[in-house]
Amino acid sequence: MTEDVPPRPKARAPRGFQDRRADALAAERRILAAVSRVYESYGFEHLDTGAFEYADALGKFLPDADRPNEGVFALQDDDEQWMALRYDLTAPLARFAAENWDSLSKPFRRYAYGPVWRNEKPGPGRYREFLQCDADTVGSDRPEADAEIIAMAVEGYAAAGLPRSAYALRINNRKLLNGLLTAAGVVESGQKLAVLRAVDKLDRLGPQGVVSLLGAGRKDESGAFTKGAGLASAAIDSVLAFVEAGRDTRVATLDRLSEVIGGSAEGDEGLGELARISEALGRMEVGEDQAVFDPSIVRGLEYYTGAVFEADISLQTVGERGESVRFGSIGGGGRYDDLVARFTGQKTPATGFSFGVSRLAAALAAADGQGDRQRGPVVVLALDQALMGDYFAIARELRAAGLPTEVYLGGSGMRAQMKYADRRLSPAAVIVGGDEIAAGTVTIKDLDLGRALAASVADNQAWREGRPGQVTAPRGELVAQVRRIVEAAA
Amino acid sequence: MTEDVPPRPKARAPRGFQDRRADALAAERRILAAVSRVYESYGFEHLDTGAFEYADALGKFLPDADRPNEGVFALQDDDEQWMALRYDLTAPLARFAAENWDSLSKPFRRYAYGPVWRNEKPGPGRYREFLQCDADTVGSDRPEADAEIIAMAVEGYAAAGLPRSAYALRINNRKLLNGLLTAAGVVESGQKLAVLRAVDKLDRLGPQGVVSLLGAGRKDESGAFTKGAGLASAAIDSVLAFVEAGRDTRVATLDRLSEVIGGSAEGDEGLGELARISEALGRMEVGEDQAVFDPSIVRGLEYYTGAVFEADISLQTVGERGESVRFGSIGGGGRYDDLVARFTGQKTPATGFSFGVSRLAAALAAADGQGDRQRGPVVVLALDQALMGDYFAIARELRAAGLPTEVYLGGSGMRAQMKYADRRLSPAAVIVGGDEIAAGTVTIKDLDLGRALAASVADNQAWREGRPGQVTAPRGELVAQVRRIVEAAA
Repeated sequence: MTEDVPPRPKARAPRGFQDRRADALAAERRILAAVSRVYESYGFEHLDTGAFEYADALGKFLPDADRPNEGVFALQDDDEQWMALRYDLTAPLARFAAENWDSLSKPFRRYAYGPVWRNEKPGPGRYREFLQCDADTVGSDRPEADAEIIAMAVEGYAAAGLPRSAYALRINNRKLLNGLLTAAGVVESGQKLAVLRAVDKLDRLGPQGVVSLLGAGRKDESGAFTKGAGLASAAIDSVLAFVEAGRDTRVATLDRLSEVIGGSAEGDEGLGELARISEALGRMEVGEDQAVFDPSIVRGLEYYTGAVFEADISLQTVGERGESVRFGSIGGGGRYDDLVARFTGQKTPATGFSFGVSRLAAALAAADGQGDRQRGPVVVLALDQALMGDYFAIARELRAAGLPTEVYLGGSGMRAQMKYADRRLSPAAVIVGGDEIAAGTVTIKDLDLGRALAASVADNQAWREGRPGQVTAPRGELVAQVRRIVEAAA
Repeated sequence: MTEDVPPRPKARAPRGFQDRRADALAAERRILAAVSRVYESYGFEHLDTGAFEYADALGKFLPDADRPNEGVFALQDDDEQWMALRYDLTAPLARFAAENWDSLSKPFRRYAYGPVWRNEKPGPGRYREFLQCDADTVGSDRPEADAEIIAMAVEGYAAAGLPRSAYALRINNRKLLNGLLTAAGVVESGQKLAVLRAVDKLDRLGPQGVVSLLGAGRKDESGAFTKGAGLASAAIDSVLAFVEAGRDTRVATLDRLSEVIGGSAEGDEGLGELARISEALGRMEVGEDQAVFDPSIVRGLEYYTGAVFEADISLQTVGERGESVRFGSIGGGGRYDDLVARFTGQKTPATGFSFGVSRLAAALAAADGQGDRQRGPVVVLALDQALMGDYFAIARELRAAGLPTEVYLGGSGMRAQMKYADRRLSPAAVIVGGDEIAAGTVTIKDLDLGRALAASVADNQAWREGRPGQVTAPRGELVAQVRRIVEAAA
């Protein structure tokens, strides 16, 4: 017989995948609801696409490889086509827009949220499945479409509960630096990329470090040498003046930028776009400290073609082991005019923003000092099988009054049931035995008060006998008594 | 150069995967919110597990095959372990409960919702990704735990918007028929399965058909012969009496069942459980027509070990092509005491229910006569680039008053913009040009009224000139005028 019994599998979640419980999910759900409401108030339409896309549609299929690129979870369908789980919400949007372009109302403005999957090496805090929440406008080349995306992001973070002083959208335009480099004679794409990489390090290395990386190169403290972009000194000066062009207001930054950039056609185009973004942001009353023009913002993804946005949180908090934690980017986006064209061959202007929902939830928990803990339900103790019907009648009555309530359904005794209610962070326990039934009463224990009293009483024995926070009331007062306790706990 | 350009991929969703738009998503979201609120009112905790499980944990890994069973989407991780997308929410719960058993508050009562994936042949209305919403109690062998699951399902459907007359939970207990068969000397598992299959056809074939299938077999109209279970005639009579034991009330059915089943230990156990379920349902005031004891309910899945539940909808509707559509099961569940034991080796009682969210949404849409159409936002027409700032200020003002509003961001003229607003099902369009700015006014078009008037006016030319449903008002009355139209449209 023994060989017929399959071995018992080990119960464990796959590497890099999370089980999330009520507290974390409640925070996420609040964020998604708040941000969705903002999107809908701007007239964006909800869209949901499937988890899979064909690998070629995701653009992660290398033409010379016989399997999709690493970085995605891919499998071959029974008709031999490779499918992969989406790694973001933008690629499926581009596919959807291309597939349905003729029948869509244009511009097509949609929001979406849901899990995305990345087949990367998992680590602490690095998961292979996480939530994104995006809004995109497809089919508008107006810079005002970018402004609207920025305004929604600013409003979305506030709606999700971030203090306005804690975050800012930083905005740049790819065309500015491109125009400046072209004017300086830098046209080779490898050299341009080296310049972008150098600028991206401004925060970490400061101006002098960037100057080194723009020029011959930089030796760090360990002695390791990073080769520089090899710009001539005049070009280095221009780039540095550019990344340091940020001023107190969007208009002042624009003025300074036009001094630094002026003259190249592409740079002027970028300036014109930023000016229109600035005008629209002003009229939407988006604060100067919420949406900042910052020429040092790079953003990695190659597909951005114009405006780029990054949401930074300035929160400085203390982590679980007392270490200082700096939250950096909590979202980003920009204008990408080439993504739909991959399918259709026709340039289709698009712009969007993606909230990193899990990172935002972590930031909110940190801003609070700690995450929310959800209160448990009122627990009706199950002390006597003969009274189970009464317990269910009590629970029904409390629920009908809007008070979440459960009857304890395990097989343990009273002490374990109280502990259960305690661990669920229940506000109250209802205790009914034969005495209460005979007397027409209910006993209700205020668990918060009980905990507080227990903590303040030195003699634990006295506490046990004294039944702190416990009242016995006529059965008719059940709802009122419990409501009083629940409302005090909220 | 040409050979460097990869071929353009075709924009199409993978077979069996859906793109869902705002109307469908709003219905789903309403269902999930309503059902979640019911679960939370009973003290169930929200849990979300990852999309993947290890294939052996899903139990879909055949020991003698080198790939996971078909029916799931599986792939091999870079450490060679096979992972598969969850095909339901119960298997991940069993894994989670087994993995965390020691630290969980018990009984562990959780609800969950999200997509599940089945690698099956797609067809019309048959998708490979769909939504489920489940509640389960792990660690309670009390029949009252089953009663609670039933009560929540009944309440959940009502909260989601189904008329109470349109559906019922049908409840049975596996132990009844098992006990009856054992008492009749039917112990061979193949024969028992044949009996279950025969009983399952009561609806379709009627009692005479079932009698044939319980005995020698049955020839259908086409002449095809189905071999029967081969029961002796006394046993056939018992089984038929059993499946026809349903009476008007749960208590009356119990009485009749005890006449039919009485005597076998397993049957008596099942009766005792149903009696306790009946008592709890009564005390929770679950209507007799909402939760019905029905001995003919079988449910396919082999893992149910006691009570089984099935939600049937009685709605008879007309499909897209005028055909009559019968919605059958819209959810189901039962008690499964062996699923956690797969991991731990220890029997762990569990019971639960799963809503088929997509089927429920379809049923609700059918019950309504048709699905909801979401109203679009107010559209501020973009008629003059120089006034874009004013358009954004108007939109901001309307949004701040709680009225979803967008500024048209495409490049088309007025006629196309009105058509856009019309297709979005917008209630109103705001029309502002140089004249309005100079006069300090806004022009607002009531689009519903415009449509109605246009339909009633024979002379289309007159309609075009008459601007039906259009008013010009002082700028200060913007919000009040638009609100009036939006509220009338709601």
